[in-house]
Amino acid sequence: MIKHTTSDIRRSNRLAILQHIYASAPISRQELTVSSSLSQATVANVVTDLLGTGIVVESGYRHSQGGRPRAILGINAAHGALIGVDVAETYIRYVLFDFQLLHKTTIEHALPPEANQPAQIVDCLVCSLNELLQTSGTPRAKVVGVGISIPGLVERAGGVSVFAPNWAWHDVPLAALLKAQIDLPIYLDNPLKASAIAEQWFGAGRGIQNLVAVTLGTGVGAGVMINGALYRGTTNSAGEWGHTTVVLDGRPCSCGNYGCLEAYVGAPGILQTLAELAPGSALLHYRDQTASITALVAAARQGDPIANEVIQRTTRYVGVALASLINLFNPQVVVIGGWVGLQLGHAWLPELRASAARHALARPMNATTIQLCQLPNQISMGAATFALEGFLLSGPTGVGVH
Amino acid sequence: MIKHTTSDIRRSNRLAILQHIYASAPISRQELTVSSSLSQATVANVVTDLLGTGIVVESGYRHSQGGRPRAILGINAAHGALIGVDVAETYIRYVLFDFQLLHKTTIEHALPPEANQPAQIVDCLVCSLNELLQTSGTPRAKVVGVGISIPGLVERAGGVSVFAPNWAWHDVPLAALLKAQIDLPIYLDNPLKASAIAEQWFGAGRGIQNLVAVTLGTGVGAGVMINGALYRGTTNSAGEWGHTTVVLDGRPCSCGNYGCLEAYVGAPGILQTLAELAPGSALLHYRDQTASITALVAAARQGDPIANEVIQRTTRYVGVALASLINLFNPQVVVIGGWVGLQLGHAWLPELRASAARHALARPMNATTIQLCQLPNQISMGAATFALEGFLLSGPTGVGVH
Repeated sequence: MIKHTTSDIRRSNRLAILQHIYASAPISRQELTVSSSLSQATVANVVTDLLGTGIVVESGYRHSQGGRPRAILGINAAHGALIGVDVAETYIRYVLFDFQLLHKTTIEHALPPEANQPAQIVDCLVCSLNELLQTSGTPRAKVVGVGISIPGLVERAGGVSVFAPNWAWHDVPLAALLKAQIDLPIYLDNPLKASAIAEQWFGAGRGIQNLVAVTLGTGVGAGVMINGALYRGTTNSAGEWGHTTVVLDGRPCSCGNYGCLEAYVGAPGILQTLAELAPGSALLHYRDQTASITALVAAARQGDPIANEVIQRTTRYVGVALASLINLFNPQVVVIGGWVGLQLGHAWLPELRASAARHALARPMNATTIQLCQLPNQISMGAATFALEGFLLSGPTGVGVH
Repeated sequence: MIKHTTSDIRRSNRLAILQHIYASAPISRQELTVSSSLSQATVANVVTDLLGTGIVVESGYRHSQGGRPRAILGINAAHGALIGVDVAETYIRYVLFDFQLLHKTTIEHALPPEANQPAQIVDCLVCSLNELLQTSGTPRAKVVGVGISIPGLVERAGGVSVFAPNWAWHDVPLAALLKAQIDLPIYLDNPLKASAIAEQWFGAGRGIQNLVAVTLGTGVGAGVMINGALYRGTTNSAGEWGHTTVVLDGRPCSCGNYGCLEAYVGAPGILQTLAELAPGSALLHYRDQTASITALVAAARQGDPIANEVIQRTTRYVGVALASLINLFNPQVVVIGGWVGLQLGHAWLPELRASAARHALARPMNATTIQLCQLPNQISMGAATFALEGFLLSGPTGVGVH
């Protein structure tokens, strides 16, 4: 379907210019004209509209050579609050952001395996969102939306968790359950989409066209940005990289198949590699997977040979699978994130790059930068970005065109 | 980069409407308005322009209930000729099309391994293109462009074959070599891109957003259509599916790596599976890989147990790798093409589907149709489509906006 009606263009121009202001503020109208490739007149009109909504403000003047001082534009931090929730397999992190997407307050709770039933998670979310508002002294009316990232496949429009393999959830109408108890707009999606949208607006995706954001945690997957926009696929499940078969007839995976990447390089998979190599390892007896992975990484950095072998095998699998992504998507940037990804990347980024380079074609490999995620709270930030987008595209205070 | 200047929109609307006319002719302005989602006024204006160029013609009238008869639009077949060349590892096929992309004349030559040096291929192309024009009685001035598909990685703008692994070609400036001898516009790309663009304009991609066209021949890869348009990636090498690692430390591949999909399911890889299972098989002693694959498929269909085992292993690898594509791209349609793909698909499409379904996540799998390519000359047709697009986007007879 082509979308070139006048109101589509106005909406798309407004969202694009806002995205440029978020990415580059403080920024002048002249700089926006250059970076957006839109005409001076279009930029001027859209900026006037945005100043009228109160989302964008003139935050000062910059002296230009010989000419009049140029007004510089920024986002009005006080326009509202956004909440991003990163529901992971082992923890839930709630972050309150101001309208500039700057972090204000965080609450984090561990999520033990015995507390991962839908009703328990809903109770926990309701309770903690209230706690977040109270702790931060934020009036509920200030919150323009709550974005929630939840592992697995998500049906976005209805806010349904279709399938969360690590919890065996099927078709849980999470947004509806929450809306019954929280009177705020709820936006549901998964960490793969959240990581990609966060990079697109605020991170390594700013100003580029094609990016892959991989997330390595308990689960494993990739968010894909194509032609400057998040690629969702036909049913919002693009990027399910963790269920790529890397070993035919290999380990059973939580998804029901065998030999998936996630079964080798998700946190439980890494610990299984350790258990296979050294069934009696003390590293296996920490209180949970988070503590075990942290201890494993520390042991490997201190030269423990078994821990090192586990890391070598893991980085090799990750590298092989990164190579497939690079061959298929030919991106400009690959960002490595997720709590396991960050730990691996901090210590072994050169090894990950070398493993990818050994298995990828030279041309796409040379066109790609593999880097660690630089955004604090990448997934919460992405979840909050979904709430921001939802708000911006809806009226009357948003930028929706009516 | 945003592309919403007025002339970008005009160009994009013209190309989109032409694509709808190609996809659905005979079609009325009213039907175009519905299928393109553009306004009635925009459609009317663009159609008037296109009638003026002579590319589009009114081909008759259709009576509508109660109203005036509606003019129906079509493409003027006589507006010019297009040539599509499918240079494969084992043959070269030259197809002359009229402007409706209907096939007029074909020439095909086998390409023996001793004739695959760049200078030999250039000579062959020059000679055969002249032969094609003479045989068909087409004046050179009628030809608006020649599209050439060549295996491997291609740098499109410069018309350079960057890397053709099966021939060990590196950085061959093919378009420049040809232009020195053929006074016609040349458009170079590879079979993965050609297969996807052919499906987008004329095949299974019409009217949908996301499609993957896989090509199985001597080489193996995928062309990707995203949001209704061919996805090229950062350096025009997206879709290199054949070099996905399917067996760690597996067979050496022509690309220099080990265990690539292509090393198992490209024609030479299939024959290697046969040689490993039955080193003395008579099927290995046909004159070339094309004849051997055809004989192998025939033997398997007649119940030969060794041939059957080779096919089972091959369909399994293809299915596993299709599952990864389905998980990553979440497409509406997967089209299987290429000379090996067509032979496998004609006999074992249910097995390929079942193998993919065993390894893909249920949600994206259920959203995907896996089907055989229905376009005769898919790759030549795609190559000719590149010439068509090049012509349409250039002036003065094209639809370029100046």
